[in-house]
Amino acid sequence: MADLAESGVVREVAGRPGQVGRPSLRVEPVSESAVVVAFDLRVESTVVALVGLGGEELWRREQEHARAKYTAKVAVKNLLSLTRQALRRAPEDAAWVGIGIAVPGIVDHADGLVRFAPNLGWVDVPLGALLREAISAEYGFVPHLAISNDADLGALAEHVRGVGADNRNLIYLSGEVGIGGGVIIDGRPMLGAGGFGGEVGHMVVNPAGVECRCGATGCWETVIGRDALVRAAGLKKDHATVEDVIAAAASGSERARRALEEAGDWLGIGLANLVNVFNPEVIVLGGHLRLLHPFASDAVDRHVLTAVPAAREQVRIEVPALSGDSPLLGAAEAAFDALLADPISVIADVAHASAS
Amino acid sequence: MADLAESGVVREVAGRPGQVGRPSLRVEPVSESAVVVAFDLRVESTVVALVGLGGEELWRREQEHARAKYTAKVAVKNLLSLTRQALRRAPEDAAWVGIGIAVPGIVDHADGLVRFAPNLGWVDVPLGALLREAISAEYGFVPHLAISNDADLGALAEHVRGVGADNRNLIYLSGEVGIGGGVIIDGRPMLGAGGFGGEVGHMVVNPAGVECRCGATGCWETVIGRDALVRAAGLKKDHATVEDVIAAAASGSERARRALEEAGDWLGIGLANLVNVFNPEVIVLGGHLRLLHPFASDAVDRHVLTAVPAAREQVRIEVPALSGDSPLLGAAEAAFDALLADPISVIADVAHASAS
Repeated sequence: MADLAESGVVREVAGRPGQVGRPSLRVEPVSESAVVVAFDLRVESTVVALVGLGGEELWRREQEHARAKYTAKVAVKNLLSLTRQALRRAPEDAAWVGIGIAVPGIVDHADGLVRFAPNLGWVDVPLGALLREAISAEYGFVPHLAISNDADLGALAEHVRGVGADNRNLIYLSGEVGIGGGVIIDGRPMLGAGGFGGEVGHMVVNPAGVECRCGATGCWETVIGRDALVRAAGLKKDHATVEDVIAAAASGSERARRALEEAGDWLGIGLANLVNVFNPEVIVLGGHLRLLHPFASDAVDRHVLTAVPAAREQVRIEVPALSGDSPLLGAAEAAFDALLADPISVIADVAHASAS
Repeated sequence: MADLAESGVVREVAGRPGQVGRPSLRVEPVSESAVVVAFDLRVESTVVALVGLGGEELWRREQEHARAKYTAKVAVKNLLSLTRQALRRAPEDAAWVGIGIAVPGIVDHADGLVRFAPNLGWVDVPLGALLREAISAEYGFVPHLAISNDADLGALAEHVRGVGADNRNLIYLSGEVGIGGGVIIDGRPMLGAGGFGGEVGHMVVNPAGVECRCGATGCWETVIGRDALVRAAGLKKDHATVEDVIAAAASGSERARRALEEAGDWLGIGLANLVNVFNPEVIVLGGHLRLLHPFASDAVDRHVLTAVPAAREQVRIEVPALSGDSPLLGAAEAAFDALLADPISVIADVAHASAS
């Protein structure tokens, strides 16, 4: 804490106005003192934000991209250009201490190697190494770079600042084209042998169903993923979204209504599985699952009631406190990690590098 | 360690015979110095063992019971009688430091309340309190009492002394009438909010299938549990076992052969789910699943190959090193916990209580 104060990234302030009794000092982060650039790399768009210490979004932008053409090379060029735009919004004298990226796939944390992102068509893409090279060429240094699975980062953000702030056992589900999962067990991210745990979207729930992009049949994402919903609703439009399915149901499409109902049923079946397997305090429905929830809550309740009693009594099903930005803010949180672990040396590194 | 040596439960011994160089001292547990009574409370039998420090089974017996008549009252009477029999085999001067019980159901660790053991028909049975009362009436004191889920204890034993001794992420599956799961994450038991995690037998994999005892439809145990296998094989015999199904297939029953094949397929589907969800280093097939494995290994390999690549590369599927006794030896391990945490006071308690 003394290190943080000395480096100017936190300040001591008096207790809240209106507080009675002797005013106590509180420590609060100085949001403008240090910033990170955070990305939520989605399948059909990239969200970028400049985030201050403490989690404040100082600037945010979403940019669409064509899924089929979004190769690693295109992605790196795009990330570099968005980094430039973000840094132009940085407060004067702010230290740029990190880049955080949420990726819809399986990532090797140590070096930012994307092992498998089926909905982007990426296999063993060295995103970390490529971006490091590009950032270094542009800025002459590379700040702390944190690349992780989007759902893992969503779980982190909701655990640190969201609906799971008081809970030690949390699951965050990212609903986008596919379904990802991030799991916090006893207050710590569940990594598994190689950091690849939590791939609940590929839990087989409907073996009589359709083939998944991963090669298995009847994965959870084949029945509650966005493409599954759009297909079941019979929408012909390019780039149709879950919002489109909901709109179609609202304007009387029986097929869209049935698609939502069936997806709600499958959502409930998978959630009951997670309750039985993990006995969590809270499951957070991120991405499009939070849109699906109002149409699915009866089915969800019905299925979760079939989970083993002791576990079902303890679980809450929630939508994210951070709305659609949980993975983005989790990426920011991870990008700040190095600063919080060793503030003086990170600030010094950045200052030194900026000056060079 | 000094405490343990002083209390006589470990001794220093010279290095192994044949060892070259200066002989080093090793510490080894004195198996006869302290004992526990361990139980594996199965659905149709109770296994009891007198276990010495270090995990040696000094005496072991299995006693069958009628499933329908096995109420909590009957169970407690039975456990007390088997405790008497076990203690008669205890080495002279051995300290009796604990009782450990593996239960096929969901248990509140703190007080040994069995919340739900569907295959015994037990709901909220205060096994811990009842047994404490009975032991106290008989012996005038109660040693450390550890009651846990059978699969959780199987996982503990295989992690401490079995096929997962070198691994930090392990899943143990108990195949009996139902299917239980014990999960070790990063070297620690995964408890979840209330200690009820790991109920993988109630993961729904076949929603078009049959109703489970738990009330849901198509749980994993409805397709790989013992009763499911016996039914699919068309065996009419009372108390038929998985061994009977295997024998029927070996003597030419096409129906039994197909039952084994189908169960193998479902085993593979569920294992792939666990690989995706947990990214474990090893999954241990306990109980009858180890008998099923030779007939299922092709199907298991085929399904596990559909798990996400990074996770499937890291997993081994194994049979238990401790054979059918992993839950029993895990119960012994848990019963020794108090001794290992505070040897002097536990030994003193027992000596005082025995003398009183």
